[in-house]
Amino acid sequence: MVLHTESRKDQSCLIVHGPDQPGIVAAVAALVTRNRGNIVSLDQYSSDPSSGDFFQRVVLNRPDLAAAMPEIEADLARTLTPLGLSWTLTDRSIPKRMAILVSTSDHCLLELLWRHRRGELPVTIPMVISNHTNTAEDVRAFGVPFFHVPSAGPDKAAAEAQILKLLEGNVDFVVLARYMQILSPGFLDAVSVPLINIHHSFLPAFVGAAPYRKAKERGVKLIGATSHYVTNDVDEGPIIEQDVARVTHGHSALDLQARGAYVERAVLSRAVQWHAEDRVIRHGNQTIVF
Amino acid sequence: MVLHTESRKDQSCLIVHGPDQPGIVAAVAALVTRNRGNIVSLDQYSSDPSSGDFFQRVVLNRPDLAAAMPEIEADLARTLTPLGLSWTLTDRSIPKRMAILVSTSDHCLLELLWRHRRGELPVTIPMVISNHTNTAEDVRAFGVPFFHVPSAGPDKAAAEAQILKLLEGNVDFVVLARYMQILSPGFLDAVSVPLINIHHSFLPAFVGAAPYRKAKERGVKLIGATSHYVTNDVDEGPIIEQDVARVTHGHSALDLQARGAYVERAVLSRAVQWHAEDRVIRHGNQTIVF
Amino acid sequence: MVLHTESRKDQSCLIVHGPDQPGIVAAVAALVTRNRGNIVSLDQYSSDPSSGDFFQRVVLNRPDLAAAMPEIEADLARTLTPLGLSWTLTDRSIPKRMAILVSTSDHCLLELLWRHRRGELPVTIPMVISNHTNTAEDVRAFGVPFFHVPSAGPDKAAAEAQILKLLEGNVDFVVLARYMQILSPGFLDAVSVPLINIHHSFLPAFVGAAPYRKAKERGVKLIGATSHYVTNDVDEGPIIEQDVARVTHGHSALDLQARGAYVERAVLSRAVQWHAEDRVIRHGNQTIVF
Amino acid sequence: MVLHTESRKDQSCLIVHGPDQPGIVAAVAALVTRNRGNIVSLDQYSSDPSSGDFFQRVVLNRPDLAAAMPEIEADLARTLTPLGLSWTLTDRSIPKRMAILVSTSDHCLLELLWRHRRGELPVTIPMVISNHTNTAEDVRAFGVPFFHVPSAGPDKAAAEAQILKLLEGNVDFVVLARYMQILSPGFLDAVSVPLINIHHSFLPAFVGAAPYRKAKERGVKLIGATSHYVTNDVDEGPIIEQDVARVTHGHSALDLQARGAYVERAVLSRAVQWHAEDRVIRHGNQTIVF
Repeated sequence: MVLHTESRKDQSCLIVHGPDQPGIVAAVAALVTRNRGNIVSLDQYSSDPSSGDFFQRVVLNRPDLAAAMPEIEADLARTLTPLGLSWTLTDRSIPKRMAILVSTSDHCLLELLWRHRRGELPVTIPMVISNHTNTAEDVRAFGVPFFHVPSAGPDKAAAEAQILKLLEGNVDFVVLARYMQILSPGFLDAVSVPLINIHHSFLPAFVGAAPYRKAKERGVKLIGATSHYVTNDVDEGPIIEQDVARVTHGHSALDLQARGAYVERAVLSRAVQWHAEDRVIRHGNQTIVF
Repeated sequence: MVLHTESRKDQSCLIVHGPDQPGIVAAVAALVTRNRGNIVSLDQYSSDPSSGDFFQRVVLNRPDLAAAMPEIEADLARTLTPLGLSWTLTDRSIPKRMAILVSTSDHCLLELLWRHRRGELPVTIPMVISNHTNTAEDVRAFGVPFFHVPSAGPDKAAAEAQILKLLEGNVDFVVLARYMQILSPGFLDAVSVPLINIHHSFLPAFVGAAPYRKAKERGVKLIGATSHYVTNDVDEGPIIEQDVARVTHGHSALDLQARGAYVERAVLSRAVQWHAEDRVIRHGNQTIVF
Repeated sequence: MVLHTESRKDQSCLIVHGPDQPGIVAAVAALVTRNRGNIVSLDQYSSDPSSGDFFQRVVLNRPDLAAAMPEIEADLARTLTPLGLSWTLTDRSIPKRMAILVSTSDHCLLELLWRHRRGELPVTIPMVISNHTNTAEDVRAFGVPFFHVPSAGPDKAAAEAQILKLLEGNVDFVVLARYMQILSPGFLDAVSVPLINIHHSFLPAFVGAAPYRKAKERGVKLIGATSHYVTNDVDEGPIIEQDVARVTHGHSALDLQARGAYVERAVLSRAVQWHAEDRVIRHGNQTIVF
Repeated sequence: MVLHTESRKDQSCLIVHGPDQPGIVAAVAALVTRNRGNIVSLDQYSSDPSSGDFFQRVVLNRPDLAAAMPEIEADLARTLTPLGLSWTLTDRSIPKRMAILVSTSDHCLLELLWRHRRGELPVTIPMVISNHTNTAEDVRAFGVPFFHVPSAGPDKAAAEAQILKLLEGNVDFVVLARYMQILSPGFLDAVSVPLINIHHSFLPAFVGAAPYRKAKERGVKLIGATSHYVTNDVDEGPIIEQDVARVTHGHSALDLQARGAYVERAVLSRAVQWHAEDRVIRHGNQTIVF
């Protein structure tokens, strides 16, 4: 873990992905060296050493990085494209822009705002959008704009259009921090940035509504929370992080909900941090987390 | 936790269950006192203080317990039956008799045999039954009889009848320590003692066969194991204990299976210990674990 | 766990402590019954069944409790004093008054304020006192008075006197939520209410200053936090709760501090909740936590 | 985690260590490529990107590895020595030879023997040495030679000399699986292979004898175990792995010991596995665990 407060000046994150083959690491490392970069950290994974998919994350340091980016990108295109590899190169000194969507529950929202204020999340937060107003004052106390977009009434499409208009061009990813509306496929198509959700159960157990009530009814001895990318299949997207907490017969469904809130905010925070640091790579319906 | 190796002489475990009402604790405590017993430990739970079910577990000490049991039982009948309460009184110096059914995987079996040898499980093990023979030598090295009852072939009923004949009158409960056969409703009716199973997933996630393969496909970040009482609905019985272990994208389905084995043996061991110590009370499809 | 938001009207918590002997449970239960109370929950522990110390916590429900308290207390005195037992009876509808002392770190402070606002801590917070001013605005946003008592300069005694004056008669316990001043024996004598501290290590490892730096130097693989009652021996008081988090060689001392903050706030919150619910009994330099 | 049961034929593990400097990764990767190897996995760590120590672990695959080893080693010497880097290259198809020293407690010993039989530990076990005889039968049932070297009496030097004679030339590392004798500095000098110990506490808490009794006296809420390399300073060597288990006031020192045994065997097993897979690098009094 590198804290946001440490300098990320002149640091870049390179993600490489494609068919595994001998020599990729050497090719990438040579490219970094000939562009006067130094490898700060390096992770790689191959889904199958003989014929699988290859994934690599390299954090590199290079004096005057901003000026050299086009040059490095051209070299990456020359070197990796012939090998069938795709890649992204990001300047780590530029934080990602994160919007938060929330309903009435404040625990995940406040945790993100508070970790951000501590300098632990490498993001900016241009806006919080809610279909309720109860969190407005708290959000603005953190210096973050708050927009109220009611979801009540038949015209869900209008609300989604309004949200899209607010997000468009202004954010790099969206966090659903207990946003209790199901977003339409049309919205998910149009939004064009990743969405991260927190589901209040240990998926795939207790998909859908009221997982704590279901957990109480089933008599489980652990409850959990799952953070995942949002897809058109509710609660079925690629899982980024999960965790659990121990419960007993003595806990009511309300107790499970209260205890679960602490698991939710921890799990969502880790997922957001890893996404913001380009540590998470989607691979089909799974994730590689470096 | 009281270790089996500590003396349980003259100790008795009283379980009381029924409709909650004021004065139960006082009635039971007075009964213990007037029978010259001392309360060693006491746990209670009410599913709803106003109109719920009441559950109590009392460990009591009484000189010359064995001789006094009939007298105490008569007092219990006089005192608790009028209140609509049911009860069981067991002599803790008499260990429960536990049979183990197993297929080829030895990790849960050996863990139970070994914990028993250490004196940590208050049971005797009159027999291990398997539909395979690979564990026979290990089992007999612990001084425990091993019976081979093959399950192959069309005549499942005959195999079950043979198992029933071995168990009948000889055991107080049965542990399925990775026994990979589904027992018929007829068997479950006839066996007339509790059966404890270990399922290799975090139920209700991944019910049924091949949970580790399913877990790999879903891309979960934690795997789990669940021990539960066996009912006619496969993997749906009351849960006694569950636990999880962290996994990553780098683990194959085979890795999950290897790591999961350690969660399975720990979870099953705790469930068996608690059952053997009369700490688990079934309540509908849930359990109270004191 | 009973949530603060559930009604505690007419509920009382009885703590009994003294030499173990047969019949205590029966005597207490009979007392509750004859005072028209109902036992909601009951926990007990004996340090040694034959000649040890006995501890019991009983939550009881009684219509018109407030009016009946003197009567019940008189009965307790008649019943328990002859047995050499001491006891306290508290009205659970009256929350304890908690002061928080803090220096510059806000993570434990904000966690307590926020859990209190959620209704999860059965306390009132009449004041936060700090030797710095950086948290003043946050504290007051929660509607809680903030007092600045600087500790700089040679006159520590004057600062302590000022704090004592603020606390006197206004609080039932004090939480040191990362208060980086060592309080004098004179202060601890005079304050006359319990003080709960959070130490940022897994005690007894890394007593004293800079535990994260020491942890990094020792190369531990887990870091921890410990909440304990304050005594004249720094970091040696009775432990209420502890927890840990996994770290690796890749974490700097600063990383340990950042990760540790989340363990600290969780551990302190649980300790405060349990103390506020009269779940913690001091026994020499140890605690019984029911 | 790669299971031992997977083929390690033609796999080699390269450890590189020395002063950090730009281009090391590229140099190593190019070397692997020009020797017709493929990088299977790669981990690296730098204690300080500007002027720190650099550590790298590369698992590589190369057809006909055994024949090519001298050639690769020569290339490593040509390439890395000028950069001030040290390195080791090991053939992963050759398991390390592990001796186990044990006293009377069998839990760590049996866990290692049993994991080895399952094919999870990439080692051979040429011998178990004990100063007692109670585990002899169990050990030999696993097909492992057992040697009894009594430690009683004044002539500790003679016992150590006998152990040295048994180990000499026959083992690559030694595991102290609850061996309750302190080995002399002379023995540690002479043995010339790494020794891994399991200490039954969360170091640096409770150094020395009787940690469970000390833990009970201090009233901790978690107990732990620590596996570390043995140095002349008892319980002060580089830590490989640690873990904890939750305990309560209700557990006696004997209960702590019983619960702790399960933490000990898990912690030691992981430490042994990681050492056997060349995942652990000593760095002063700390370890890098890849």
